[in-house]
Amino acid sequence: MDFFSDNAAAPCPEVLAAIARAAPASRSGYDGDIISARLDAAFEDLFGAPCVVFPVVTGTAANALALAAMVPPYGAIVCHDEAHIQVDECGAPGFFTGGASLLLVPGAAGKLSPAGITTTLASHRGDVHQVQARALSITQATEAGTVYSVAEVAALVGYGRAQGWRVHMDGARFANAVAHLGCHPGDISCRAGVDILSFGTIKNGGLSAEAIVVFDATLADDLRFRRKRAGQMPSKGRFQAAQLLAMLSDDVWLRNAARANAGATRIAEKLADRLLYPVEANEIFVQLHSGEAERLRDAGFGFYDWGAAGANEARFVIAWDTADADIDALVVALG
Amino acid sequence: MDFFSDNAAAPCPEVLAAIARAAPASRSGYDGDIISARLDAAFEDLFGAPCVVFPVVTGTAANALALAAMVPPYGAIVCHDEAHIQVDECGAPGFFTGGASLLLVPGAAGKLSPAGITTTLASHRGDVHQVQARALSITQATEAGTVYSVAEVAALVGYGRAQGWRVHMDGARFANAVAHLGCHPGDISCRAGVDILSFGTIKNGGLSAEAIVVFDATLADDLRFRRKRAGQMPSKGRFQAAQLLAMLSDDVWLRNAARANAGATRIAEKLADRLLYPVEANEIFVQLHSGEAERLRDAGFGFYDWGAAGANEARFVIAWDTADADIDALVVALG
Amino acid sequence: MDFFSDNAAAPCPEVLAAIARAAPASRSGYDGDIISARLDAAFEDLFGAPCVVFPVVTGTAANALALAAMVPPYGAIVCHDEAHIQVDECGAPGFFTGGASLLLVPGAAGKLSPAGITTTLASHRGDVHQVQARALSITQATEAGTVYSVAEVAALVGYGRAQGWRVHMDGARFANAVAHLGCHPGDISCRAGVDILSFGTIKNGGLSAEAIVVFDATLADDLRFRRKRAGQMPSKGRFQAAQLLAMLSDDVWLRNAARANAGATRIAEKLADRLLYPVEANEIFVQLHSGEAERLRDAGFGFYDWGAAGANEARFVIAWDTADADIDALVVALG
Amino acid sequence: MDFFSDNAAAPCPEVLAAIARAAPASRSGYDGDIISARLDAAFEDLFGAPCVVFPVVTGTAANALALAAMVPPYGAIVCHDEAHIQVDECGAPGFFTGGASLLLVPGAAGKLSPAGITTTLASHRGDVHQVQARALSITQATEAGTVYSVAEVAALVGYGRAQGWRVHMDGARFANAVAHLGCHPGDISCRAGVDILSFGTIKNGGLSAEAIVVFDATLADDLRFRRKRAGQMPSKGRFQAAQLLAMLSDDVWLRNAARANAGATRIAEKLADRLLYPVEANEIFVQLHSGEAERLRDAGFGFYDWGAAGANEARFVIAWDTADADIDALVVALG
Repeated sequence: MDFFSDNAAAPCPEVLAAIARAAPASRSGYDGDIISARLDAAFEDLFGAPCVVFPVVTGTAANALALAAMVPPYGAIVCHDEAHIQVDECGAPGFFTGGASLLLVPGAAGKLSPAGITTTLASHRGDVHQVQARALSITQATEAGTVYSVAEVAALVGYGRAQGWRVHMDGARFANAVAHLGCHPGDISCRAGVDILSFGTIKNGGLSAEAIVVFDATLADDLRFRRKRAGQMPSKGRFQAAQLLAMLSDDVWLRNAARANAGATRIAEKLADRLLYPVEANEIFVQLHSGEAERLRDAGFGFYDWGAAGANEARFVIAWDTADADIDALVVALG
Repeated sequence: MDFFSDNAAAPCPEVLAAIARAAPASRSGYDGDIISARLDAAFEDLFGAPCVVFPVVTGTAANALALAAMVPPYGAIVCHDEAHIQVDECGAPGFFTGGASLLLVPGAAGKLSPAGITTTLASHRGDVHQVQARALSITQATEAGTVYSVAEVAALVGYGRAQGWRVHMDGARFANAVAHLGCHPGDISCRAGVDILSFGTIKNGGLSAEAIVVFDATLADDLRFRRKRAGQMPSKGRFQAAQLLAMLSDDVWLRNAARANAGATRIAEKLADRLLYPVEANEIFVQLHSGEAERLRDAGFGFYDWGAAGANEARFVIAWDTADADIDALVVALG
Repeated sequence: MDFFSDNAAAPCPEVLAAIARAAPASRSGYDGDIISARLDAAFEDLFGAPCVVFPVVTGTAANALALAAMVPPYGAIVCHDEAHIQVDECGAPGFFTGGASLLLVPGAAGKLSPAGITTTLASHRGDVHQVQARALSITQATEAGTVYSVAEVAALVGYGRAQGWRVHMDGARFANAVAHLGCHPGDISCRAGVDILSFGTIKNGGLSAEAIVVFDATLADDLRFRRKRAGQMPSKGRFQAAQLLAMLSDDVWLRNAARANAGATRIAEKLADRLLYPVEANEIFVQLHSGEAERLRDAGFGFYDWGAAGANEARFVIAWDTADADIDALVVALG
Repeated sequence: MDFFSDNAAAPCPEVLAAIARAAPASRSGYDGDIISARLDAAFEDLFGAPCVVFPVVTGTAANALALAAMVPPYGAIVCHDEAHIQVDECGAPGFFTGGASLLLVPGAAGKLSPAGITTTLASHRGDVHQVQARALSITQATEAGTVYSVAEVAALVGYGRAQGWRVHMDGARFANAVAHLGCHPGDISCRAGVDILSFGTIKNGGLSAEAIVVFDATLADDLRFRRKRAGQMPSKGRFQAAQLLAMLSDDVWLRNAARANAGATRIAEKLADRLLYPVEANEIFVQLHSGEAERLRDAGFGFYDWGAAGANEARFVIAWDTADADIDALVVALG
């Protein structure tokens, strides 16, 4: 019973079917095919706003390319100190930007706040001797499994734009956030002023396609070249587009996420007094009892230890395809 | 009837089946799964030599990552002036290496030769004021649809190693070369002294996986990090490994290539007196008669003009899945 | 008798005196001192146009920083195939730009021409698979010791701007060019549409200061940070400014260059029938007679062989401080 | 009365005289002259160990080049969170290394400790998803005006080497540290296992030369090219070498530093109860009384506020040439 992560889950049937349908040869390579041609319009329908969409194969590539289009090499990106771009991407932003820095801001429950950023940057100077903050990167849902409210996103983005910064959203679990909030996807992205969204599908039933959704079209031309140059533009691009379109069709993206969220919520209800963070998406961080981790593993549950060594904390992640029976079993086991 | 390129051909059934088989969730993300675990051994069987294999999603990524592991930022890579890394990758080697240069060598029929390199580099100095040649990149089969013989590869690699250079092989159409030569794949790679081979499948029936095959294991650790940092390490890595294993099983890679080569040969026989280069792989470059291009297009044949504007040259590419009937029709039309 | 180069000549007395005068401690480091404060105005007076000036310590730094402010990492810089940025800067443009490429254009007597660029770039495409030409770099005086006329500069810059390119001028010997043309310095720079000029002094009596003269102020902010980040912003910046101001005062820059040019002209008159290029600045490229090189060296003349091995070509460079007696002796020896 | 910094102090007479002596033209540019030829030996005498020395024009360049020779682009450099490379170099390490990161470690009085590093890196992983610590950078004297003892340096370097890291020392005020410790300069550098030392002179009476002192010769070849490529190799290199040799002759470097230290010590004695850190070099960090800053400035003393806004902390720096009378006056004013 696998609660390790959502990142190696099965692709959903709609995605696999789309790949099969895209299989016949195309006369046009790269993004010149008829499937890729539908991509921008599909995302424009979803977000209710003009956008340019670039499929890439990993979230790391989506984030790093987006940031490279936003900041100069001497720039800096303000982000949470637990952000994926800091902790889990082997310095990809530094590579793609030509050496830009991350300015790390702490914050409770995985969240940035305007006040927290102000405090952290209080001693950061605008002079030529320091790197220059030029972008804000917000992770939605956060690495702590929490979700910024529509108002929180608006406040953060507004704060960033008031500083003259570009705004990026790492939406590896954007679907989980929208499913939790019940809002329009534009409410926490383009309508709030986000310039580029890394729209994830791989943790949500996709196979190998993430979408860089560029709301500010002036950034798109630059990205077009950077993406090719980064080896992120497959000659059989139709398979990337097909995956993304399949996720958008019939709200697959939203249904998958809602299902995962629901599973997490069900488990969380048993843990209310020992959750480390509110469970708002599909991840649960919990304080275990003494010996509980071993007991659970003996019972066949797979999950990661979390936090500092000996902290006896654990993370459980529910994927779109986690079996109800597994969730039931975990609920019982945590009882 | 599509003779544009092999780069957007259908994935072959074996590859699609392997993807379907890999679909169920894995407890282990990235390359930690049981399919990925079989990759090195499969390539070691193929090449009869120890190797470390990193799947990536494009040939551009394979080439650029390989080169980045070979040359310092102040280094230079010796390659043919029509090499894909120079002409079609938007400067990817410059990006991945941190600004290394390409030293471009002309050569007939798409081929480098020791003499040609010597001539081109005659005025290149080893002093601190110039970039330093540190790697040789050989394209096999070449961009002109020709194939280096085993002896030619040995001579080139030997020349490069005598200069103290690392040797890379861009094998986007490596399978076509092996099929043409009828040699052991190691004869034109590891046994000749190639350090890293970009082993292509995408132009040969693959969907989205190319293999960086590292024969000199001392280069592998560096590549491991560079690949992750470049966003080329998918969390569902099992799908990448599965594609590569499917290509290697039952010689799919070789059979697909042989079939494409055979189609090209059949067409070439009709064109013997007006071929621009010997047809040794799956590409045909031909001098057209006046008005012939238009006539062929009117008859439903798709292909690219080649060479300088007005040169009346054309390229026809045969893919693993080009229909026999289409080839027959082209043979007749060229009559 | 040293005719090797002008790059290790003595600093002129005006420059040494300015350094001595700048010696007392300053309350303000970097460029905050009262000497640095006069720099922009002095260059504005010289060029008759608004500009922002950044001193750096080498011509390599001046050129590479200027280019980095002009082109994105996937960009390319059009330049002569013998340009210093290609031949003698160890790939600095690739480093400073984050991996941009040079597009090399041949041309007689060290000169680019619109027609030559058109020919070279005829097969270069604007699609996403190739690097994008975004800047033109012109060397004035050229590496062949020739000088673009005012009309030639206007034509080249106009051509570049019509393509949408930025225009850089490598003016390591800009003073020699102006001295030869007898024109206003603006005529071959800002008035012609040059965006950034690398204004050299080191080969012309300076010690360690070159000026990046930015005529398009929109490029200046970016350069300010790139220069600091490149370690090209000394804390005792007043010494850099002082050198540049000394060169500009009383036309020292122009007088030094005129003197060097005159020496070269005097020698060239003896060589008219065997000059490789017109002598228009302070460099002489000459076809030697058999045995002449050895004879000259035996007589105490120092100079570099030029061209291919065995070509029996030589370069003589006259510096601002080359002794008249040495020039006399060379004139006699060449008789 | 200027206590702002030592970074814009006058060059000392020995340095100015050396520049004047180096003025005559050299037949050999770059580092090929007879002054530069003496550089390695002079530093070998000083340190009692083999070394290769590269002059550069700023401390930023010295540090960033040294680090670029030590870590791959996916590497990380462990340093104090107030280190100059983090706070005051506009991200230069990221530029020169191709995007490597700094891992920031807090520590009292500007000092790193093995325990502090262990704590900070406790959650840092060696897997492919994170940047890899590959170097340790120690600042001696520290940014807080303190000095690591010989034993502290040995412990830190030993700790770093035990991790397999390269060790860099930012010695912008190395002279002040040696003067304080009264040790052999090798005791806190090569003998302790430091691979590369940024040996500063500019804050200690130099004009424009810092020395990269490479104790591990295997790193020198790489640096040679990186330095040129970074525009840090002047054609009149003899002036750089001359400055460094002048500083080493007759212990000028040590006497200048000792004088500055002595001035700081004299002032510190008046402030013993309100020093923020022990005064061990030439910098004083002090808690001011209410209104004291204004009173001092009214009395003609120049200095920087320090710490957070409103903290009422100040920094006073004594340069090699700070007048005794100014120090006397400050001692009285602080009374």
